[in-house]
Amino acid sequence: MLPIYKEDTIAAIATPPGIGALGIIRVSGPDAIEKVNLLFPKKDLTKVKTHTLHFGPLMYDGELIDEVLVSVFKAPNSFTGENSIEISCHGSPFILQKVMEVLAAIGVRPAGPGEYTLRAFMNGRMDLSQAEAVADLIAAESESVHKTAIQQMRGGFSEQIKELRSQLLNFASLIELELDFGEEDVEFADRNTLMQLLNNTYTQVKKLADSFQLGNVIKSGVKVVIAGRPNAGKSTLLNALLNEERAIVSEIAGTTRDTIEDILIIDGIKFRFIDTAGIRHSTETIEMIGIGRTFEKIKDADIVIYLYDVNSTTEEMLSLDIEAIPSNKKIILAANKIDQMSEESSLITNNQQLTTNNFLPLSAKTGQNIEALKNLLIQSLDLNTNLQSGNDTIITNVRHYNSLINTLRAIENIISGLNISITGDLLAADIHAALNSMAEITGEITNDEILGNIFGKFCIGK
Amino acid sequence: MLPIYKEDTIAAIATPPGIGALGIIRVSGPDAIEKVNLLFPKKDLTKVKTHTLHFGPLMYDGELIDEVLVSVFKAPNSFTGENSIEISCHGSPFILQKVMEVLAAIGVRPAGPGEYTLRAFMNGRMDLSQAEAVADLIAAESESVHKTAIQQMRGGFSEQIKELRSQLLNFASLIELELDFGEEDVEFADRNTLMQLLNNTYTQVKKLADSFQLGNVIKSGVKVVIAGRPNAGKSTLLNALLNEERAIVSEIAGTTRDTIEDILIIDGIKFRFIDTAGIRHSTETIEMIGIGRTFEKIKDADIVIYLYDVNSTTEEMLSLDIEAIPSNKKIILAANKIDQMSEESSLITNNQQLTTNNFLPLSAKTGQNIEALKNLLIQSLDLNTNLQSGNDTIITNVRHYNSLINTLRAIENIISGLNISITGDLLAADIHAALNSMAEITGEITNDEILGNIFGKFCIGK
Repeated sequence: MLPIYKEDTIAAIATPPGIGALGIIRVSGPDAIEKVNLLFPKKDLTKVKTHTLHFGPLMYDGELIDEVLVSVFKAPNSFTGENSIEISCHGSPFILQKVMEVLAAIGVRPAGPGEYTLRAFMNGRMDLSQAEAVADLIAAESESVHKTAIQQMRGGFSEQIKELRSQLLNFASLIELELDFGEEDVEFADRNTLMQLLNNTYTQVKKLADSFQLGNVIKSGVKVVIAGRPNAGKSTLLNALLNEERAIVSEIAGTTRDTIEDILIIDGIKFRFIDTAGIRHSTETIEMIGIGRTFEKIKDADIVIYLYDVNSTTEEMLSLDIEAIPSNKKIILAANKIDQMSEESSLITNNQQLTTNNFLPLSAKTGQNIEALKNLLIQSLDLNTNLQSGNDTIITNVRHYNSLINTLRAIENIISGLNISITGDLLAADIHAALNSMAEITGEITNDEILGNIFGKFCIGK
Repeated sequence: MLPIYKEDTIAAIATPPGIGALGIIRVSGPDAIEKVNLLFPKKDLTKVKTHTLHFGPLMYDGELIDEVLVSVFKAPNSFTGENSIEISCHGSPFILQKVMEVLAAIGVRPAGPGEYTLRAFMNGRMDLSQAEAVADLIAAESESVHKTAIQQMRGGFSEQIKELRSQLLNFASLIELELDFGEEDVEFADRNTLMQLLNNTYTQVKKLADSFQLGNVIKSGVKVVIAGRPNAGKSTLLNALLNEERAIVSEIAGTTRDTIEDILIIDGIKFRFIDTAGIRHSTETIEMIGIGRTFEKIKDADIVIYLYDVNSTTEEMLSLDIEAIPSNKKIILAANKIDQMSEESSLITNNQQLTTNNFLPLSAKTGQNIEALKNLLIQSLDLNTNLQSGNDTIITNVRHYNSLINTLRAIENIISGLNISITGDLLAADIHAALNSMAEITGEITNDEILGNIFGKFCIGK
């Protein structure tokens, strides 16, 4: 769908497909109330107050379709900002389909994907980053994604950008004023104050852009690979990690659908144990770590748990294996089978690798230190200064990230320009480039292609 | 769950599982409004009018869970007849789960299956047959089931039973009055008028009971078997029947889920082509009709389409096959491949089987007369006097059918008693048996076991 905004009246099923107690159809547009009123003989819906509920039969052509509850919202106080009706039916796909057919028969068009939120955006009910947050919020499967999405939806992040942009916009106006007085060589915009604002803006934008690395991990899940030699106990460890949490994970529908991953949510953060099935079913031939498929998995991982059997691993083997893991990876060294440790097999602790990396002795079999391992996984994310404080914004959207990076480049240009005292018109052009990048995030400046990309990915009914 | 009615406050997710634009949680019970008010800081929900909508953040323990739309219903004007709230959230399973957790934390109990409708029944918002209709309505996949369920939900059928029962109850009172005047041999209840009422009631109840045969077929779908010798074109015929309707069927989610049947909806009636996959993939060995698995399928069918190739079937073969089909089955004789008919293979028309059964020449390959075959399938159901008139009630529930049959037996007893002029006390007992059977349908007389059976089958949230 091309999101060309039309002013007709649209309808869509807003509840998930399937059978339930209730199913909702939303109708929005200038004629929404008049149209639904044609199907609702009990009461004149055009005469009722906004934000009221009305129970009665939904009829078409003399036929009773269902007994429904109708919610009436008058413009501009609705999600879309238009006149809107929500029809709450019995949750049968048959009835919902029938209501959609009847609405079509009286000239209400079925909505395309994201068309509701697009209208909300077009009518100024939310900015673009808030609209994007709606989609993220609906898809959220973990506490952390939920938290960042709801913060974004409430405008926390857009407000920050808007504030920075308005300060910069102010300077742009002053500089353009100078240009009007071209011949007179006046300077309305104080260059030092501008430089200060630019530095401050740069710092804030950089902080937002930097948060994307974490935001992206939060949104898509932290990729973890358990690596180690055969019989190190990788499969037992994975089971130990998953077992007690499995019930909680499975309560959230769709979590593990279509994935070949094991998902574990720890402290609200989603961890994805990537393709560990392959690792679990590794053959008996000795596969050196850092060779072949395991290496590919490790390259893709955010965190590597290197697991070894304390009773059969020499310090030499340990060093060899760990050195094979790329140095930019976060590594947790897990010494397994401490429950079976004999007198001879004392724990290696003086190895340099063990002291420079996270190191944890544990027993996958008895469960000893499994909780500590979970804590280490969380700690590895360095959330302290970010998510857990709850105050700072975390960027999770790649489109925002790109706009922030463009903003940074533009600010760098302005600063270089200021440093060599470029002319006012060139300075104004640089500032406008920065202003545009910032405006892209909130949608103050946008185009159909961007809108199409964003709203085309929404589900129908949203 | 045992449906012992409790007066606490309950909550359940009312929308189907999965991701959608909206998800609804219903809260019902004496404290519903007060409880949800604890989570809704924006406005005092205990002070708002019934049937109003309120938008705002849902908060718990300082944490924002979602921005929601809250519908307020005050007792007795709600589905359950109790104070009720509907919380409309973003349609994320994660959020819905979280709202349920937060509600539990403030003392709102998760509802069991059917608990909402049970409360509606207990609070006199609907009778038992109407409550049962709600479940049927939600599960309806075809026009005919939808129609009968919605008629039942609106009380058409219960009204009829209640009216008949109240007339009979009137007589019971008069006869009990006679008993009070025991010694005086008075007769308040005119025996002739009673006999007239009984005959009238019997006729009406019998008509309802008789409609169950059709109602049952409508509800579960009409079982059709296409039988015939190998290469008669059974598979081609099935495809011809299914092809154009397939799209319509698949729009109704869940229609073909978990079935090994092909479903076809004609004029709003569901037809189930039972295990025809087996027939379609029959081996090349000649399998006489009436032998083995095909015979089993035919025994189970409501309608048998006997298909034969006009170009290779002799009158003798035809007679042999048709006679093997049990005579109580509805048979449609379909003469296939009329598009390939040569000069020699003229259509057999004078056969006695062809004249006493529905007979239709067609071509599965070209589609000739496929529409006529669909019409024949509909005609075979003898709907004219039933569903299509739209006036008569059709019983679709086996519990109602059993109660109607018990009512008929009880009325027969009263009539026999009257004929031999039994004493008033025996007569009163017989009348009470009939009254009880009738009361079972609407739930005026019921017990926990019956309620458990009925509401235990509902989904949670309904």
